[in-house]
Amino acid sequence: MDELRNALIYNPTKNPERTNATVERIFEVLENVLGADASQHINNLNNLLQIKDLRSPINEQTADRIIAYFDKSGLTREQIDGVTFQLQLSEISTAEAIELHSQFKIPVSRPEEDIIPVLGKGCWIMDTKGKWYLDMDSNYSATNLGMANEQIARGLYNQASTLISMKEDRIQIARSRFLKEIHTMMPEGLNQFYWQNSGGEAVDKALKIAKAFTGTTNVIAFKGGFHGRTHGAVAVTWNEKYRKPFGLHQLDWVHFAEFNNLKSVEDLLKQTGAKIIILEMVQGEEAGNLPATPEFIDGLWALAKKHNALIIDDEVQAGFGRTAVKSGDWFACMSYNVTPDIMVIGKSFGGGYPVTAVVTRKEIAEAMQHGYDGSTFGGNPMAMVAALIATRQMRAKNITQNVIERSQQLLEGLKELQQKHPVVGEIRGRGLMVAFDLGSAQNVERVQTALRENGVKASLSTGSFIRFLPPTVISEGEVNYFLEKLDRSLSVL
Amino acid sequence: MDELRNALIYNPTKNPERTNATVERIFEVLENVLGADASQHINNLNNLLQIKDLRSPINEQTADRIIAYFDKSGLTREQIDGVTFQLQLSEISTAEAIELHSQFKIPVSRPEEDIIPVLGKGCWIMDTKGKWYLDMDSNYSATNLGMANEQIARGLYNQASTLISMKEDRIQIARSRFLKEIHTMMPEGLNQFYWQNSGGEAVDKALKIAKAFTGTTNVIAFKGGFHGRTHGAVAVTWNEKYRKPFGLHQLDWVHFAEFNNLKSVEDLLKQTGAKIIILEMVQGEEAGNLPATPEFIDGLWALAKKHNALIIDDEVQAGFGRTAVKSGDWFACMSYNVTPDIMVIGKSFGGGYPVTAVVTRKEIAEAMQHGYDGSTFGGNPMAMVAALIATRQMRAKNITQNVIERSQQLLEGLKELQQKHPVVGEIRGRGLMVAFDLGSAQNVERVQTALRENGVKASLSTGSFIRFLPPTVISEGEVNYFLEKLDRSLSVL
Ligand SMILES: Cc1ncc(COP(=O)(O)O)c(C=O)c1O
Ligand SMILES: Cc1ncc(COP(=O)(O)O)c(C=O)c1O
Repeated sequence: MDELRNALIYNPTKNPERTNATVERIFEVLENVLGADASQHINNLNNLLQIKDLRSPINEQTADRIIAYFDKSGLTREQIDGVTFQLQLSEISTAEAIELHSQFKIPVSRPEEDIIPVLGKGCWIMDTKGKWYLDMDSNYSATNLGMANEQIARGLYNQASTLISMKEDRIQIARSRFLKEIHTMMPEGLNQFYWQNSGGEAVDKALKIAKAFTGTTNVIAFKGGFHGRTHGAVAVTWNEKYRKPFGLHQLDWVHFAEFNNLKSVEDLLKQTGAKIIILEMVQGEEAGNLPATPEFIDGLWALAKKHNALIIDDEVQAGFGRTAVKSGDWFACMSYNVTPDIMVIGKSFGGGYPVTAVVTRKEIAEAMQHGYDGSTFGGNPMAMVAALIATRQMRAKNITQNVIERSQQLLEGLKELQQKHPVVGEIRGRGLMVAFDLGSAQNVERVQTALRENGVKASLSTGSFIRFLPPTVISEGEVNYFLEKLDRSLSVL
Repeated sequence: MDELRNALIYNPTKNPERTNATVERIFEVLENVLGADASQHINNLNNLLQIKDLRSPINEQTADRIIAYFDKSGLTREQIDGVTFQLQLSEISTAEAIELHSQFKIPVSRPEEDIIPVLGKGCWIMDTKGKWYLDMDSNYSATNLGMANEQIARGLYNQASTLISMKEDRIQIARSRFLKEIHTMMPEGLNQFYWQNSGGEAVDKALKIAKAFTGTTNVIAFKGGFHGRTHGAVAVTWNEKYRKPFGLHQLDWVHFAEFNNLKSVEDLLKQTGAKIIILEMVQGEEAGNLPATPEFIDGLWALAKKHNALIIDDEVQAGFGRTAVKSGDWFACMSYNVTPDIMVIGKSFGGGYPVTAVVTRKEIAEAMQHGYDGSTFGGNPMAMVAALIATRQMRAKNITQNVIERSQQLLEGLKELQQKHPVVGEIRGRGLMVAFDLGSAQNVERVQTALRENGVKASLSTGSFIRFLPPTVISEGEVNYFLEKLDRSLSVL
């Protein structure tokens, strides 16, 4: 019962992040573990404890009474272990978590209440009900290495207990150690790094670097592109809904070209004299995992050369092997056999820790003079440790090779399902950025719900396309599991 | 010798963040520990090992030979322990750390090579030479609770090994758990949170929220103000050097008023019709810790009311007790007895982990509709755990009270030194945001160098002002230590 006690009353040395359990959560866990048999125990505990506020953290005395109750409850060791395990993962109930969220969080996006996750293990996520799901989203590609990471956890512990932070302009070991190895993962010649904390922030800074280098401010971006939400990043993001409420929809320095359309780019280059182009090689969020054609990329590079423009390649979502076509394609640009002038990387860079970067050539980097930028947390030691371990894991696990094989397996499986389920329209993708058309957003939602019921988390969509960004560590068996559940889920349509 | 071995050859289970030691670092540590006596051992090891590249990580065989050498070297146990300890903290040498930094990092700011930190303990920092410094900077207020934090380290370990990340729109326990308690720390009525990763990013989003709520884009900011570096944040930052290289110096939506000058604000409100005002109540970076006068703040609030404008209070540097005047003044606005419409918080919020937030009232928050913003890492579970533990520590340690007492002690001590050293000009500050004038930037540099030699890290300055942002946990004895060293250091002028 010691374990149970630790799950009820937090120990600040072992679990400084917790609070004591609430009675509401204890009741919820009993229902999760015992099903219909829970109600009798809930009644007994209610009578015994006489707690008014089910949501206030219990005290030691209440914990003792609960333990004494369980001791005599007739529950099996296995049942008590199940209860203990779930209590260890969350001390507040699902309902309370949802209410706190809606009460106190600024609603910039629709809250997702369907799965409240508490535990990750590889590509799997367990929710507050104790149900497991195969993750087909990777948090929009931010947790490509899985939902929990013992090595990164250990590294963060070591760093935070040694030297928890250090500002951007001070040299420190964690960063230099990382610099020593990370540059070998980058496209040829891109070995100058500027660290940031989010993808949007890094895009914003990439634009600043490009502006400083070219001495110009006009930027060509693409219809269907998404680059983040700061004033700079959202300015070059296509969806007008994301810009208009903030007066960022009629900026004189941003021009949108058609994606996969060279003439549109050339016209704008001529009309605007722009010297800066920003793109995603596989348009994710807004276009629904739409890859550039190789001809477009080749032509774009030729146009940029001709017009003396530089190219910012936003690999925040596509990078770190996700869109690999050949072994060693760590970035989409490598898979297209081109090198951009500036690359922006992020999301899974730190295996889940917020760390992003602008990477460029020496010549461009030098345009940034002392004082041109600065950042409290950019390149902080914990970030460097997380990214070092995450990128080592990617290389050790030969991620690009796995992406190539799993992508092929997944796309072939989808094509088979397309035969069987005529509702499946266009299938598209590159590497493990995959999507298919279901005809309508309603259809997408119905299939997502069915998938969830079948133990698959697939929450991403763009219009009538359902999108998949599985962890890049996903196994053959897991892809098969997904295809099987998808087959079943498509039957609801 | 097992410990030494672990410091030479990394153990991926225990220290996944490390690489094996380099011979160059081993030599440096020998010099740190043995002083002049090191050269004989360095010669011996050089002859024994015959290593060509002193900077490549050593292999197991080399480690064995080094250990065998130390075994017979006649060094005392204490000396060997000293060497082991320093090797555990850094496996690469100071020179290599500096070179890697200048070789691969985009030079947006001047690299600080003077102190290469490897270990923090409370308000103290040890560098690669084994020398300790009292920290009077707190990384620009980002590590107010000290340079290492065992509890946060443990919390991050627990979270990263359980559920390492989760996107902003999905409800998760770490965040709800934090919401349950954090809102009680905020100024009255400010209980709607939107999480970001850096201060600049949060300022950028605060501007977006203000624009969405007011339906206007004009902003009044202040001369001498600093708000960060994204396109949005730098646009409202005064220093033109930070804006001009990026074409952000002539924006039609930003208007700079004189700080501490109500007429200037009123004129701009009338001229521009602006409905958004952003300020730091104590101007940090650019103005050198210059507090607003109480009259200015009162008048500004009255003006905003009269003109129906909302006020964004940037507390990124001043917040979390740093500028406390009365016990419980967690934010500068509380110390001035006013409540802003929107507050931006960051830096020490996560005790060193990158986490920041926009905080506002319900009515304003509701202007943000679904899809108006989004963030991969905003409010991620590790961030929530770090901020939960950090803010609990702040409350448990009664930080505001400590700030009040140490501030008084520090300011009185400075006034005494002013009597003795006529070079000390204006002394200013609020709480533990303190600065004084030394007449010239050269004088500041000379005093900083002398302080460093005397074991004090005080790297911050604005023009002729030397700035101090000591950890808010600093003790009475430490403030006395600082004053004593400062007395000695001022004698160099
Ligand atoms: C291509 C691309 N760029 C930038 C971003 C913004 O990243 P963050 O959410 O970390 O600011 C995203 C996020 O989805 C993205 O997909
Ligand atoms: C008042 C203020 N706002 C915003 C920022 C920007 O914060 P960050 O460096 O985390 O982007 C700073 C940083 O010094 C600051 O002092």
